[in-house]
Amino acid sequence: MADVRELGKRAKAAKPALGRAGAAQRGRALLEIAGVLEREGELILAANRRDVAAAEKAGISPALIDRLRLTEQRVKDMADSVRQVAAMPDPVGTVLGGSCLPNGLRLEKVRVPLGVVGMIYEARPNVTVDAAALCVKSGNVCLLRGGKEALQTNLALAKGMREALERAGLPQDGILFVDDTSRESAAELMKLNEYLDVLVPRGGAGLIRRVVETATVPVIETGTGNCHVYVDAAADLGKALDIAENAKTSRPSVCNAAETVLVHEAVAREFLPRLKERLGRHGVELRGCPRTREILGDWVRPAGEEDFATEFLDYILALRVVGSREEAMAHIARYGTGHSECIVTEDYSAGEAFLQEVDAAVVYVNASTRFTDGGEFGLGTELGISTQKLHARGPMGLEALTSYKYLVRGNGQIR
Amino acid sequence: MADVRELGKRAKAAKPALGRAGAAQRGRALLEIAGVLEREGELILAANRRDVAAAEKAGISPALIDRLRLTEQRVKDMADSVRQVAAMPDPVGTVLGGSCLPNGLRLEKVRVPLGVVGMIYEARPNVTVDAAALCVKSGNVCLLRGGKEALQTNLALAKGMREALERAGLPQDGILFVDDTSRESAAELMKLNEYLDVLVPRGGAGLIRRVVETATVPVIETGTGNCHVYVDAAADLGKALDIAENAKTSRPSVCNAAETVLVHEAVAREFLPRLKERLGRHGVELRGCPRTREILGDWVRPAGEEDFATEFLDYILALRVVGSREEAMAHIARYGTGHSECIVTEDYSAGEAFLQEVDAAVVYVNASTRFTDGGEFGLGTELGISTQKLHARGPMGLEALTSYKYLVRGNGQIR
Repeated sequence: MADVRELGKRAKAAKPALGRAGAAQRGRALLEIAGVLEREGELILAANRRDVAAAEKAGISPALIDRLRLTEQRVKDMADSVRQVAAMPDPVGTVLGGSCLPNGLRLEKVRVPLGVVGMIYEARPNVTVDAAALCVKSGNVCLLRGGKEALQTNLALAKGMREALERAGLPQDGILFVDDTSRESAAELMKLNEYLDVLVPRGGAGLIRRVVETATVPVIETGTGNCHVYVDAAADLGKALDIAENAKTSRPSVCNAAETVLVHEAVAREFLPRLKERLGRHGVELRGCPRTREILGDWVRPAGEEDFATEFLDYILALRVVGSREEAMAHIARYGTGHSECIVTEDYSAGEAFLQEVDAAVVYVNASTRFTDGGEFGLGTELGISTQKLHARGPMGLEALTSYKYLVRGNGQIR
Repeated sequence: MADVRELGKRAKAAKPALGRAGAAQRGRALLEIAGVLEREGELILAANRRDVAAAEKAGISPALIDRLRLTEQRVKDMADSVRQVAAMPDPVGTVLGGSCLPNGLRLEKVRVPLGVVGMIYEARPNVTVDAAALCVKSGNVCLLRGGKEALQTNLALAKGMREALERAGLPQDGILFVDDTSRESAAELMKLNEYLDVLVPRGGAGLIRRVVETATVPVIETGTGNCHVYVDAAADLGKALDIAENAKTSRPSVCNAAETVLVHEAVAREFLPRLKERLGRHGVELRGCPRTREILGDWVRPAGEEDFATEFLDYILALRVVGSREEAMAHIARYGTGHSECIVTEDYSAGEAFLQEVDAAVVYVNASTRFTDGGEFGLGTELGISTQKLHARGPMGLEALTSYKYLVRGNGQIR
């Protein structure tokens, strides 16, 4: 059983080597990691088959097993994703600003790695590789703790990646993996203030809530997305249909999928039947407010508080008719999780007001909420999508894994 | 007794009005606040006299009473400080970046207020005014909870500032004050995730630790400063004397004061007796490692682990002779709190290596650690000095009170 404190200590000890390594050496390490994933694909797949067999035996749901399962193609995709991160501009060392004080002191503010990044996540083994690649690229040591379903796969991945670091002249401990998947090991990680600079949970709402409630280490909260599409009185209904359909059905299980469509009363009678028809093709279950049910009929299940507050992550959509844009924004302020919100409108001032006033990481006019994604935003692989306002907001790429420090050069100044 | 949840709710309700207010209106609110401090100075001083009388009766230490006590001059200084904040460039709305995606979506990343800023602090009433001024300037609502010693003063300040907001056309609830100074009210504030976007504790190490351990709201840790001055083998000893004296004695009770001086063995025999003489003028008590005591004599009290780990905040200095710059940096890595660290050297490479490798908010070559301060750094009044790496590091000015969001403008894009 892993001693989490001991791993934390080793992570801290490896920090200076990763922080000092230049961009060239860190880039080399990433290419070594991509290489090892390809060369040792068969070993990784064998470990993954053991995880999948155990999961099947334990009666784990097919959806979860699908997320767990690797294929040759998926391993190749992981290697490609590492190469993409390697090709990104290096964030470390960028000069963010500076000044010369009246007494001649020269201040320089430079971007530096966070240090040691802890991560607690669930079934998908690609998170192990993505997180390690982003951390190495940005000069950070990572201390990873995945879910028990993926343990054998993660151990094989971690072993390969650690050896890759060594081949690039970096300490193996630049990537550390907690092989103990008990609740206790997670709880210990959450309190490891002495060794961790940040902790990022990635997974279901239960995991995120537990981390936020328990951790004393600074946390970046990720991924809860109760996202809305608001169809304004001045909407182009064709665009609105495409956007609502795409936001709900292109991948319902992800955090940037829409969960509620709000419709202005001026267009509700025309729009709702068309939306029902369009979503019916995908078998989406609708849950509506009283006015929605008045228009679409009683077969639409009534939507209560609970429905508006739920991130379904499924082929279910809540519907509500609103009397004004203000009412739509009040609904979003009440039920939204600050992830992604969209207005569909051709009214210039309505669109701009929505952009300014809605408090979310990403606010859209006339585009699907599904674009909230590090890859789409051009950040390379993402570490997660932050739904808090501190430090990073929205898709987190390499910059979110950095802090800054002030270098001050003097010649004897005192105060 | 204040209902902290109810105050949180009111803070959230006031958020849109503060966020929407333009720079001109927020600036006007600050000038109204400065004006009210001057006009109602007598009322504020009367409230402060009641606090001071109660504190004296309760046998509070003279140092604490000094921090609590206001004078006509101190009230005037508070008003001046508000005017300084008013004159700073407005951080809100700055475009931080953007791009046009291949599909034509236009991304814009803009600076926005954090939202609702909670603050828990201790005796000094000027924190009430500084925090409120910085929050209003950056479009944030603040929810303040000061110490019980300053309650009457804080209530008078909050009342005046709230009325000033109203005169500038903003809701009074842009500034909220918790009039319940019990531990329970602080504990409730720490868990107010529904309403607070960030919580900043400012005060002694005990308060900061309690907040970090208890809060579920995102916290910015501030102010613990176990700062070092390292006198290198290649130091100009004249500069080293001035810097060590200034860092230790110019204001020992603040977080940017030095607590330990590390001396390279090559200069220890020459430097230590001169330092002893210089600090003797200020009555500084020295606590040294065995080699220090060998040079300065047995009257120097032995320094143990405990001394090197302590932020004395007093006329006490720990001394240690080291064999190399690496040994000095290892000492700093072990005992430092990531606040401010200084090397005194004329060796170019030694200075640059120290700047790069020491992991602290501010790293100095040949200058006193006492410069780590929002005012000195040109940030205006500071909210505190962050010793964590997430979000903000070092002196926190207006930018530390902001987040960002993405505005995405499309014409029907789906994914």
